[in-house]
Amino acid sequence: MSATLPQVVPGADLPDAVTIYEVGPRDGLQNESTVVPTAVKADFVRRLVAAGLGTVETTSFVSPRWVPQLADAEDLLTELGDEGLGHRRPVLVPNERGLDRAMEHGVGAIAIFGSATETFAQRNLGRSLAESVQMFAPVVRRALDSDLWVRAYVSMCFGDPWEGPVPVTQVADACESLMELGAHQLSLGDTIGTGTTGHVEALLLELERRGIGADVIGVHFHDTYGQALANTLTALRAGVRVVDASTGGLGGCPYARSATGNLATEDLVWALDGLGIRTGVDLGALVETSVWMAKQLGRPAPSRVVKALSGG
Amino acid sequence: MSATLPQVVPGADLPDAVTIYEVGPRDGLQNESTVVPTAVKADFVRRLVAAGLGTVETTSFVSPRWVPQLADAEDLLTELGDEGLGHRRPVLVPNERGLDRAMEHGVGAIAIFGSATETFAQRNLGRSLAESVQMFAPVVRRALDSDLWVRAYVSMCFGDPWEGPVPVTQVADACESLMELGAHQLSLGDTIGTGTTGHVEALLLELERRGIGADVIGVHFHDTYGQALANTLTALRAGVRVVDASTGGLGGCPYARSATGNLATEDLVWALDGLGIRTGVDLGALVETSVWMAKQLGRPAPSRVVKALSGG
Repeated sequence: MSATLPQVVPGADLPDAVTIYEVGPRDGLQNESTVVPTAVKADFVRRLVAAGLGTVETTSFVSPRWVPQLADAEDLLTELGDEGLGHRRPVLVPNERGLDRAMEHGVGAIAIFGSATETFAQRNLGRSLAESVQMFAPVVRRALDSDLWVRAYVSMCFGDPWEGPVPVTQVADACESLMELGAHQLSLGDTIGTGTTGHVEALLLELERRGIGADVIGVHFHDTYGQALANTLTALRAGVRVVDASTGGLGGCPYARSATGNLATEDLVWALDGLGIRTGVDLGALVETSVWMAKQLGRPAPSRVVKALSGG
Repeated sequence: MSATLPQVVPGADLPDAVTIYEVGPRDGLQNESTVVPTAVKADFVRRLVAAGLGTVETTSFVSPRWVPQLADAEDLLTELGDEGLGHRRPVLVPNERGLDRAMEHGVGAIAIFGSATETFAQRNLGRSLAESVQMFAPVVRRALDSDLWVRAYVSMCFGDPWEGPVPVTQVADACESLMELGAHQLSLGDTIGTGTTGHVEALLLELERRGIGADVIGVHFHDTYGQALANTLTALRAGVRVVDASTGGLGGCPYARSATGNLATEDLVWALDGLGIRTGVDLGALVETSVWMAKQLGRPAPSRVVKALSGG
């Protein structure tokens, strides 16, 4: 096999460069059944950065009761030292208590986890949508006061397992609320992976109408129905420049009926490399990292590129 | 879960309807290690047609020495009777002897299997590219004389496992040769799945320049590197209206290092249903068929939609 890298052929209506927002250590590992030792997590983050992933979400300060996989958030930040700090190493914080813990370790960026639907807000956050925004308000305000960078996830932007398809106007309402708090960036999540490309275009158009431009938007697609990469490329054509992905395709949504998880970073990099779009990522080093992490987890990486290039 | 069907939201630059050219019984089964009994194959074809797949490639008259999985081509056509005939039930024929056998059974359509590269022609057909075209010439001429519909596959249109990336001009040369023989339709195959969306646009543009319009083109993507659906939607935006897919994602390429096979028909239908593009396919019936076939093969269907909707 000589064809281990894609042929570079630029496409129409696409950018020169894309920022990959790597969620493997947080969104990936929190949905794996295996609990990974802290030292391995630190090594994972370091390998990802070494492979060229500039932005890596490292961990979560959600209660260990809910996410035991990431119960070692403090220890991991201690282990990472300076490598876990700065605007490009966000950690997830659920509330003010989580923010306190994160700031004690000097983090430079946080992510909050909002919802586009009432049912998911109730089930995931234990309160209504309006109440969840109230809960996030002091978190964001205090983070901004301390010059932290703030990202707001919006879950269930396309389909919701209890409510079905989610109207774009409802999603845009949720996005507006979170941006009004002062978030620097939104991440539009297709948490159960049901969205298709026209739906992506429609949501981005609705947001643009309301003054929320593509420059503050990241997209976060799950591959449960095989749509993640197609949806991502559609978002890029619509002006989005930040894409969430999980190395190896780690993770998944505990509320979806399939184990299929996040868009695999390698499958995304293959597509972008082929289009000549700069990401800074070394695909070979990334595949090596996935193969290494798959050994730690005791299961093969779901990424198709990893399977193809590692002979798995 | 109420979200078992995608929300319908039309997208930009896409057609109202697409013809799915189902290759599961041929390209799918010929690459599975399990040999399926003839009665099961016939049932498979009938279920696919009942699920709304109007065009189904049923079998191959390649030597049983090369493809033992489809050694029962004659028995299958006998078993299918009228259901295996007509312009929308093509069979693969490698040469004049294959054509003779197919015509004895009254088939109404054939597919020949060309190559875009010298190495693959040598390895798969045992002759040079030029010699392979000479071999196909009388096959196509005699088929046309008998009012058969003729499709020409073109393998290795993007990457070749021995030659690496394949120049679009070289692919277009191969396409021209096959169209000059009189084929009604080309199927552009990304046999090892390395192609990306800009490459797809570039090849379709080169073909258009040479007078080979999108109206005579089908696309055939393998998902080895996770690019199949994104590439397919790109081809649709460029005017293509015929898409090859394999129910359940059956099959693969014996020359690629991964078991990942054809674009899964269900993942394609999910994308097209979501875009409001008519295919005539009943997704629920198709998923049932994949679950049934997976039991026959003793392994789960690779399709992500099948996994999600069947709880697998």
